[in-house]
Amino acid sequence: MARIVALEAGDIRFPTSRELIGSDAMNHDPDYSAVYVTLRSDAPSGLAGHALVFTIGRGNEVQAAAVRALSDLVVDREVDAVLGDLGTFARDLTGDSQLRWLGPEKGVMHMAIGGVVNAAWDMAARHAGQPLWRFIAALPPEAIVAAIDFRYLTDALTPDEALAILRRAQPGRAARVAELSRCGYPAYTTSPGWLGYSDGKLEALVRQAATDGFRTLKLKVGADLAEDVRRMRIARAAAGAGVAIAVDANQRWDVGEAIGWIRALAPFQPAWVEEPTNPDDVLGHVAIRAAVAPVPISSGEHTHNRVMFKQLLQAHAVDLLQIDAARVGGVNENLAILLLAAKFGVRVFPHAGGVGLCEMVQHLAMADFVAISGSMEDRAIEYVNHLHEHFSDPVRIRDGRYLAPAAPGFSTEMREASLREFAWPDGPAWH
Amino acid sequence: MARIVALEAGDIRFPTSRELIGSDAMNHDPDYSAVYVTLRSDAPSGLAGHALVFTIGRGNEVQAAAVRALSDLVVDREVDAVLGDLGTFARDLTGDSQLRWLGPEKGVMHMAIGGVVNAAWDMAARHAGQPLWRFIAALPPEAIVAAIDFRYLTDALTPDEALAILRRAQPGRAARVAELSRCGYPAYTTSPGWLGYSDGKLEALVRQAATDGFRTLKLKVGADLAEDVRRMRIARAAAGAGVAIAVDANQRWDVGEAIGWIRALAPFQPAWVEEPTNPDDVLGHVAIRAAVAPVPISSGEHTHNRVMFKQLLQAHAVDLLQIDAARVGGVNENLAILLLAAKFGVRVFPHAGGVGLCEMVQHLAMADFVAISGSMEDRAIEYVNHLHEHFSDPVRIRDGRYLAPAAPGFSTEMREASLREFAWPDGPAWH
Repeated sequence: MARIVALEAGDIRFPTSRELIGSDAMNHDPDYSAVYVTLRSDAPSGLAGHALVFTIGRGNEVQAAAVRALSDLVVDREVDAVLGDLGTFARDLTGDSQLRWLGPEKGVMHMAIGGVVNAAWDMAARHAGQPLWRFIAALPPEAIVAAIDFRYLTDALTPDEALAILRRAQPGRAARVAELSRCGYPAYTTSPGWLGYSDGKLEALVRQAATDGFRTLKLKVGADLAEDVRRMRIARAAAGAGVAIAVDANQRWDVGEAIGWIRALAPFQPAWVEEPTNPDDVLGHVAIRAAVAPVPISSGEHTHNRVMFKQLLQAHAVDLLQIDAARVGGVNENLAILLLAAKFGVRVFPHAGGVGLCEMVQHLAMADFVAISGSMEDRAIEYVNHLHEHFSDPVRIRDGRYLAPAAPGFSTEMREASLREFAWPDGPAWH
Repeated sequence: MARIVALEAGDIRFPTSRELIGSDAMNHDPDYSAVYVTLRSDAPSGLAGHALVFTIGRGNEVQAAAVRALSDLVVDREVDAVLGDLGTFARDLTGDSQLRWLGPEKGVMHMAIGGVVNAAWDMAARHAGQPLWRFIAALPPEAIVAAIDFRYLTDALTPDEALAILRRAQPGRAARVAELSRCGYPAYTTSPGWLGYSDGKLEALVRQAATDGFRTLKLKVGADLAEDVRRMRIARAAAGAGVAIAVDANQRWDVGEAIGWIRALAPFQPAWVEEPTNPDDVLGHVAIRAAVAPVPISSGEHTHNRVMFKQLLQAHAVDLLQIDAARVGGVNENLAILLLAAKFGVRVFPHAGGVGLCEMVQHLAMADFVAISGSMEDRAIEYVNHLHEHFSDPVRIRDGRYLAPAAPGFSTEMREASLREFAWPDGPAWH
C-alpha cells in the first residue's frame, strides 16, 4: 500500500529580464520563475507527480512556503486513495478551515493548492501510462463530475447539467482523440509582440510567425497609444492576409480609458482585446464590451477561481475566455471552468508562456476538445517559444499547431540539470 | 535623516480552538493568529510602527514570509519620505511588477502589503502624537485623496468626487471629534453567537449583552437550519425589545440555498444577513438580495480589494458593508472603500474580532465619522470580548460603545510578554 512520502517545493528562477522577454504594460522585467512541486511516493516503481506554480520572480519563495504549508494535508495519504478520488483530495485542500482564511480560493494559497492538485493529476496520468489529456478524456462523465467542486456554482451550472454536456460529447471521443493525434491543436503566438522589442525585431518576428504557420498572433499594448497604433500598423502589414492579430493590455486601463484606447485600435480589427482592465472587474468588462462592440473582449489569465469565471459568463462580460493551468485550484477547477464555458457557449483560448504553462495547458485544451466542448474551431492555445528546453517532454509545435503529447503525465517534469542550474538563490545561473 | 532599518514579521498564535471561540459554519476550530508587523527606524526617539495581519492559524508562517518579501521595498527608505507620502509608499508596494503576479491585490500578498502599510500609518500617527483616527481626521481633504490609489475606481469614484465628499464633511469635523471623545462609537457584539456554544450559554450571553448596553448582537448560522431557527428563537426571546439580532452565514450557502434559508429566518427580522455566499460572488449577492428583500444583505469582511467593493456597490449587491482592517491593502485602501460607501450611501459596519481587529478598525470607523460619512446613525463596529489583554492600548467598551482611543498610534502595539508567550512554535503557550 504505497503512500505519499514527501511534498517538495523547489524555487526555480530564470533571469529572463536580462533580454526583456515577457515585457508588457504592467510587467516590465519579469524573471520567469516557478515553484517546482513534487509529490513523492514510496511505491516500488518510484511513482511521483510534478507540477509548476508559475510566478515572475520576487515572491517565488512565498509561493514555495505556501506549497510547503500543505504538507500535513498531503503526506501519509495512500496513493490509491488520492488517485482514486482526486475530487475529494482537492476539496480537502481548498476546504481546510484554517488555511481557507488566506484566500479563500485566491492568490498565493490557492495557486499552491493548484500546484499540489496538478502534481496529483500528473501522478495519476503517469500511473495510468497516459498523457494527461488522454487520461481525462478516457474518464467516464460521472468521474469528471465527481472531480469538480460545485460549491458556489449551482446557480449557473449543476452537476446534472455538467453531466449532460459530458454525455453529449461522449460518442465522438474516439474520433477526436484520433484527430488530435493526427493534426494537433491550433496555436497562436505571442513571441513577436513584447513591448520591449524594436520595430525591426517586431516586423521580422511577425513575418517569421506567419511563415511558421501561425494563423493568429498577439501584441502587447497599453503603455502608449501612439506607439500601439504604430506597432499595430507594422505588425498588420507584416502579417499578411489570413493572419489575425490580437492585443493584450495586461490590466493597464481604467474602464473609461479602455474604451477610448480600444476604439482607437478598432480599425485594425483586433482578433480580441485581452485584459483591458483589472481582472476582478466583471462589471468593468461588461461596460467596456458594450461600449466597443463588436470588438471582442477577453479575460481569464488572472481570474482567480471558478466563482469569478462564473460571473464573467453570467454577465456576458467577455467574448472569449483565457484559462491558465497554474492560477486556479488545479485540473479540477479548470474542468469546472471549461464546463461553464461550454454551457455558456464561450470559446476558450488558453493562456500560456512563462515557464511550463504551455506544457501544462495544452493538456487541458485537448481534454476539452475530446470530452467537453467537442470543438477546436476558432480556438487556439497561446504559444511562446522559450524555456521549453528545460522539460523532459517539451511541447512540440508544427505548422502553427501543438502536437498532441504522447508521453505519460502532464508534461511537467523538468530536467535535473535545469533544476540545478536555475535553483534560486544558489544555482550557477544566479552567481 | 532617520531611515527605516528593519521590517519584522513575528508569528503569533493563540490556541483559541481549545474553547471553540470563533467557531462558525465554515471555521470550525480557529486558532486566532497574526503576523505581528514591526517597522523599525533609526530615529533617536526609537520611532516604530506596528500592525497585525490576522489569520486563523495554519498558514500564518506563509503570511509572515509574504511580509518579509516586502523588506527590500521598505528598508532604507527615509522615514520622512514614507510618512510624508503614504500614498506613494502604498502604491510602490502594490505596484511591484514581480510581486504583483502573486495577486494582483488579493490574498496573502495583498494582506502582507496591508500589514506593512498599516504599520506605516501607526508610525505616522505616533510621530504626530495622535491616535490614528484623529491623525486621519486632521488631514486636509487633498492629503486623504493623495493617499488613495484611484486606479480601477474612476468609473465609480473620481478624485474630484472624493474631494467633494471630504469637503462636505469638513465644517463639522471639530464637533464630531468632540462627540466621539465624549460618547464613543456604537458597538455590536458577536460574543454570544458562536456555533459551538450550548443553548444555556447562548441565552445567558445574550441576556448579558443586552444588560451591557449592546443594541445589536450577531449569531452565527448556516450549519443546520432547524438549529438556527431554534437558536434564533432563544436569542430573540432573551434579547428583549430594542435589541436587534443580525446573523452571519460565513459564506456557507450557494445562491439558491441562501434564498431558502434566509426566507426561513426572515420571520425573526434579522438586522442583516452577513456573507450569505462566496465573497467573490457579486452577482450572487444581487440575486439573493432581490429574492429575500426586504431582509438586508451584507458582505465585505473577505472582500479582497477596492475593485470588488466597487462592484458590490455598483450592482447594489448589499444593503450594508463590512470593512476589515487587515484584509485589504491597509488604511489607504480602506479610505477608498469608505469614500465609495459614502458616494453610494451605504452604511458600514466594520468587521472585528479575531486578534487586533477591534483595536485597528475602531480608528477607521471613527475617522469615517469625522471626515467622510459624517454619520454614526444606524452604524456599529463589531465587538468580540477576547484577546484584548495582549495589547498595550486595548479597546475600551462602555455601555455598548467603543470609547475613542486617546494614545498615539493605531492601537496595534502588543505587550512583550504576550509576544513571548504566544510565539509560534516555540512560545510557552505551545508546549
